[in-house]
Amino acid sequence: MPSGRFSSSFSYPDVRVAIDLGNPFLNRTFDGFLKIGTVAVVRVAAEETYHSLCRGSISKNKLEHSLKKMCKEGAYWGTIAAVYIGMEYGVERFRGTRDWKNAMLGGAASGALVSAASNSSRDKVVVNAITGAAIATAAEFLNYLT
Amino acid sequence: MPSGRFSSSFSYPDVRVAIDLGNPFLNRTFDGFLKIGTVAVVRVAAEETYHSLCRGSISKNKLEHSLKKMCKEGAYWGTIAAVYIGMEYGVERFRGTRDWKNAMLGGAASGALVSAASNSSRDKVVVNAITGAAIATAAEFLNYLT
Repeated sequence: MPSGRFSSSFSYPDVRVAIDLGNPFLNRTFDGFLKIGTVAVVRVAAEETYHSLCRGSISKNKLEHSLKKMCKEGAYWGTIAAVYIGMEYGVERFRGTRDWKNAMLGGAASGALVSAASNSSRDKVVVNAITGAAIATAAEFLNYLT
Repeated sequence: MPSGRFSSSFSYPDVRVAIDLGNPFLNRTFDGFLKIGTVAVVRVAAEETYHSLCRGSISKNKLEHSLKKMCKEGAYWGTIAAVYIGMEYGVERFRGTRDWKNAMLGGAASGALVSAASNSSRDKVVVNAITGAAIATAAEFLNYLT
């Protein structure tokens, strides 16, 4: 007896962008900007959607504010990711090896650079460098563990 | 003519802990707790050292405060890492594949769990779940890029 079966699969959108800038370093950095920027945009979008669901209404003003916030956060985190990737690449080239210390040094350098670029005080630059190093090292460790 | 050469290499301390709890899942989780906890402790130690260098003096009270902060932060971040690794492992088992969506789901679950455990409001639990998902996804992406 023939039997019918319905099978369907839900395919997630895959995050893959292929833009060739003609240089592996630029490609990597730009890829990082796009990917981490996208994550930041999605995060803000999800948060704003949740808040507007809680309120139960959407006003034009709020929507504009959300869109602006998405762009700002996306650009901000994308830039930080690009700086970090560039720094880590530089450290890797300089040290000639690949290990967690690259992530640590790259994180420290990007933390310092990003906060120096935003006109922070010297104190804040050092603290951000330490925080950047800690976050990058933690991410690198987690990566081996999971 | 025999020639003598002196060669020395400076070896960094390697972060490697081998404690066997008899179960790969427990081992991984415990390893994550130790590693990320260590990163958090080192971060606080570096920050506090910098601050006390700036002040130019170390008092017994301050030292005690710093040590307490190191323990607290180490335990806090170690626990979050352990929860995240456990969650990601669970998601991986459930889905049967390894990709960035595991990190996203694991991050969301741990963000929600950690903030629910600390008696946060429902709003905060959702926001933390979104933030957790974003951080985990970003770390996963960075990991492929660097």
